[in-house]
Amino acid sequence: MIEGGTIRSVVVVGAGLIGTSIALALRQRGLDVYLADRDPSVVRLARELGAGAAWTPGVKTDVAVVAVPPHAVAQQLLELQKHDAAAFYTDVASVKALPLEQAGRLGCDLTTYVPSHPLAGRERSGPAAARADLFLGRPWALCPGPDASPAAVQTILELVALCGGNAVTLDAVEHDRAVAVISHAPHVAAAAVAARLADASATTLGLSGQGVRDVTRIAAGDPSLWTGILSGNAGAVAEVLEEVAVDLALAARSLREFSAGASPIDPVTDLLRRGNAGRGRIPGKHGGPARTYEVVQVVIGDRPGELARLFQVAEQVGVSIEDVQLEHVPGLPLGAVELSVQPEAVAVLSEALRGHGWDVPDPA
Amino acid sequence: MIEGGTIRSVVVVGAGLIGTSIALALRQRGLDVYLADRDPSVVRLARELGAGAAWTPGVKTDVAVVAVPPHAVAQQLLELQKHDAAAFYTDVASVKALPLEQAGRLGCDLTTYVPSHPLAGRERSGPAAARADLFLGRPWALCPGPDASPAAVQTILELVALCGGNAVTLDAVEHDRAVAVISHAPHVAAAAVAARLADASATTLGLSGQGVRDVTRIAAGDPSLWTGILSGNAGAVAEVLEEVAVDLALAARSLREFSAGASPIDPVTDLLRRGNAGRGRIPGKHGGPARTYEVVQVVIGDRPGELARLFQVAEQVGVSIEDVQLEHVPGLPLGAVELSVQPEAVAVLSEALRGHGWDVPDPA
Repeated sequence: MIEGGTIRSVVVVGAGLIGTSIALALRQRGLDVYLADRDPSVVRLARELGAGAAWTPGVKTDVAVVAVPPHAVAQQLLELQKHDAAAFYTDVASVKALPLEQAGRLGCDLTTYVPSHPLAGRERSGPAAARADLFLGRPWALCPGPDASPAAVQTILELVALCGGNAVTLDAVEHDRAVAVISHAPHVAAAAVAARLADASATTLGLSGQGVRDVTRIAAGDPSLWTGILSGNAGAVAEVLEEVAVDLALAARSLREFSAGASPIDPVTDLLRRGNAGRGRIPGKHGGPARTYEVVQVVIGDRPGELARLFQVAEQVGVSIEDVQLEHVPGLPLGAVELSVQPEAVAVLSEALRGHGWDVPDPA
Repeated sequence: MIEGGTIRSVVVVGAGLIGTSIALALRQRGLDVYLADRDPSVVRLARELGAGAAWTPGVKTDVAVVAVPPHAVAQQLLELQKHDAAAFYTDVASVKALPLEQAGRLGCDLTTYVPSHPLAGRERSGPAAARADLFLGRPWALCPGPDASPAAVQTILELVALCGGNAVTLDAVEHDRAVAVISHAPHVAAAAVAARLADASATTLGLSGQGVRDVTRIAAGDPSLWTGILSGNAGAVAEVLEEVAVDLALAARSLREFSAGASPIDPVTDLLRRGNAGRGRIPGKHGGPARTYEVVQVVIGDRPGELARLFQVAEQVGVSIEDVQLEHVPGLPLGAVELSVQPEAVAVLSEALRGHGWDVPDPA
């Protein structure tokens, strides 16, 4: 039983990517972890990964983590509370207003329940993709309802800390609007751009560069999984998508009118400027405000070891590589590496790399 | 004067990123290169970079490369032809029907002119950002009109080869439709997603993950430059944007109806599936068909040298890293590195990295 604010035991219901990752993180901290899933083979796999023991009704834990799809959270919570499975409860679905509202409607005890959402994920799913470090330093939203007890909030905050997450407390509706903007709507927009490629000619696809690759990367996500997420946040996502659709329709109309000799395309320029402004507001590495690193470009061959030597040289001159982008040259065993470094490190790194024989074009 | 199919001298008009990069590439091959720009300071800078000598009227070259914005190409071509500046002509604007049509209307000699477009670029612009290797292995579209002489086509093909590009010959209208799909419309869509962030709360932005960063990366491009490009391909871009806008509006409507309790969101699932299909058709590295590499994940500290050691280990076991993605953990000096490798190399690399003390979660 939970005492003195210290969680000793947790049951995780739903042994998918997120649930199993939480279980692994808590096992690393030495907690007793129990697992449940409607699919026994998934529990077996999670157990084999060292994520904990199988839960059986009657086992009472300090915290129950409901890690099931958004629409299934409230029903699962109700059943766990009927079994008195834990002192406190949270869920980790990527929408928050829906489970909270459904839990109230089903008559769940809302004093012990604090909805939450770790902002961490991968393009792969299932327990085999789970990682104990999935939440390290990532935002983890807590959306306590008005009935949640201070002890419940305190306990779920502790759970987040045990997993290495950065707790961000906000209202459930505010949360859902936020993830609509920074995750759900971008996903649908990426799909709509990628959908244009589905029946494009091979010649068209052969002209693809890095831009379209980046824009459409997340469109590779699982359609069923994403249908569940989007339907759980339908109103907020619809609102953002409508704004995007209006902007694009207006841009298209402006281009049509220009094409017909009518007017300059000021609405398009305006949209590009707003895009610039929005892009510039995304926070940078380490959660700080967005900052611009300088890029040092190096041409390398496509052989194992060359990147290693390059990073060694950076190490020798004490330069920290903040980001690295490999831009392969289609058709040739050559690539351009873009190394993001602090602006003050550009000169020393460029000179060091040139000194070791690499071709480093002068920065502007 | 050009003889035997061998280009000896080239004049590049417009010493921006693309023009200066072409000049640098040709200088590396030992050609005589002349530069012209309406801004003399830009020519001076390009000359200092070793891109060639200043052009003066009266100098006659084998090829003239018109590297000015799309709307200025035809007028520039006419003036060069009046000066008899070259035996053959090309331009490198990112749209192709417009300059060809305008050149015809202005009475340019179309037998010596072959419009072209190197599919290479950077987020930076100007001669200082130029690189001799910018075109290495990249597609370079050639769009000869019906009047172009075989000698003209042959010569511009040779120019592309001298710059290291992969020539792709296609119709100007087909070209413009292709780049609308794989470059111009994605750019506007990225801007429309990024524009939503312009007035988002700091809390919202703090929940940003890698997905929204990737989708909006190209939205950081220069709005004036892109206004020029988009206006030069207005009809084709409008068509693609209309399709994207319709898809997004239908998805929004479906989500609204679902939210009101009406119907399942099949149109959204369908869009996500089409996005999956389109994304899967983008060709992979080295111009071959798209293929899936396996990802090996490693947790590293944020210190110079650790990546170097990691690549060294890969080298020792003979594994070629096909791509590398650094995923920084906000708020902590930790990162997850995702190494893309051939599927058959996953086991050997994972084991080698674990043997050197890295934490490598088991793949699925």
